[in-house]
Amino acid sequence: MSKGFFIVFEGPDGSGKSTQSELLYKKLSADGYSCVKTEEPGGTLEGEKIRDLLLNPVFNLCPKAELFLFLADRSEHVNRIIYPELNDGKIVICSRYIYSTLVYQGFARKIVEIEFLKKINMFAVNDIVPNIVFYLDIIPEKGLSKAKKNTFKKYYFQGGDRIEMEGISFQHRVREGYLSLASQYSSIFTLIKCDRSIQEINNNIYNLTKRRLKNDRNGKNRKGQNKR
Amino acid sequence: MSKGFFIVFEGPDGSGKSTQSELLYKKLSADGYSCVKTEEPGGTLEGEKIRDLLLNPVFNLCPKAELFLFLADRSEHVNRIIYPELNDGKIVICSRYIYSTLVYQGFARKIVEIEFLKKINMFAVNDIVPNIVFYLDIIPEKGLSKAKKNTFKKYYFQGGDRIEMEGISFQHRVREGYLSLASQYSSIFTLIKCDRSIQEINNNIYNLTKRRLKNDRNGKNRKGQNKR
Repeated sequence: MSKGFFIVFEGPDGSGKSTQSELLYKKLSADGYSCVKTEEPGGTLEGEKIRDLLLNPVFNLCPKAELFLFLADRSEHVNRIIYPELNDGKIVICSRYIYSTLVYQGFARKIVEIEFLKKINMFAVNDIVPNIVFYLDIIPEKGLSKAKKNTFKKYYFQGGDRIEMEGISFQHRVREGYLSLASQYSSIFTLIKCDRSIQEINNNIYNLTKRRLKNDRNGKNRKGQNKR
Repeated sequence: MSKGFFIVFEGPDGSGKSTQSELLYKKLSADGYSCVKTEEPGGTLEGEKIRDLLLNPVFNLCPKAELFLFLADRSEHVNRIIYPELNDGKIVICSRYIYSTLVYQGFARKIVEIEFLKKINMFAVNDIVPNIVFYLDIIPEKGLSKAKKNTFKKYYFQGGDRIEMEGISFQHRVREGYLSLASQYSSIFTLIKCDRSIQEINNNIYNLTKRRLKNDRNGKNRKGQNKR
């Protein structure tokens, strides 16, 4: 068992995972917690290379190759960043984790049955699961238009990245997948409604996190490592 | 069922897979067969990027990430090259396939049990297995010194690539793994002793291939597509 506390943000493209994880990171750090903020895919030198292969529209991967690249990045990320930081007693805040694969490659693309997908994911992450998953729930039409704006800045073309280019019906299947996981993993999933201001959402997430940290028996140890 | 004929070369680093597959490719092409020569990792634009991540010593992957990258490359390779060419009636000659993963990641690194590894490999390749596997058997000390010379040309440093740098005891475990697979898959594995000249080995492989092609009921169709 690791000593840290592991928070994952999940949700469709454009649901605000980066914004909300950044805001939570800042507040918890200001409270004196020792926090690390990271994201998938990427997070390591090797992960950045894999991220480019996955998201750059120059490359055109078959669905199974895409699945294995996500798993490669995830193994690397858990092994080099998530596990060592948790083991060091930190709060790790991560955008996307195994649930993204279950939703995108399992529910949305249906390239493999969910149970097999769970098994290879748990193998990839050495059975490390988060203490809490904030699922940011947003209407697909709204999320997609936000995501396209973000990607435009990065790749300089209107279509969005390869995954976002798959359109609105794909995004609807993604949302259905997340809602199904939220009910399957109800002990760790917390559904966050995103039809309100960024600040309101952040307050909601921050208060929930503080309550969970207070109940967590290792909470004191972690706060002892504050940088103030 | 595909209409083509699928030949795989397996063996430790430096056993002569590239040389022998090239010689077989030339002879079969000269006989009028329509052949394709390919290799793992690599073979596609995406595969070349993955190959660099796997073999370039700048990158330092954890064993599970390495496994998933090989699987990503393999899915892409089967999907874009091996399956379409076999389906077109061609003879496909490929250096390395699922058996390399069973040997390197299973037997040698022991990062996962062989049965689970077989299952994810068969998933990755859509259950496409070769008609014949030529396993080039070489004494590890001899193979390693040859492999280092090849790699030196590519990466301009003495140590060999990342996998070759793991040393001689690793290469011994690799050989034991191959010998075990050769007995498990005796109906498709053919052990080729490599303690003789390149030409003698090629003659052996060529004669065995011709005999198998003659017995193969689709042999005629394939030869009908010759380019002479």
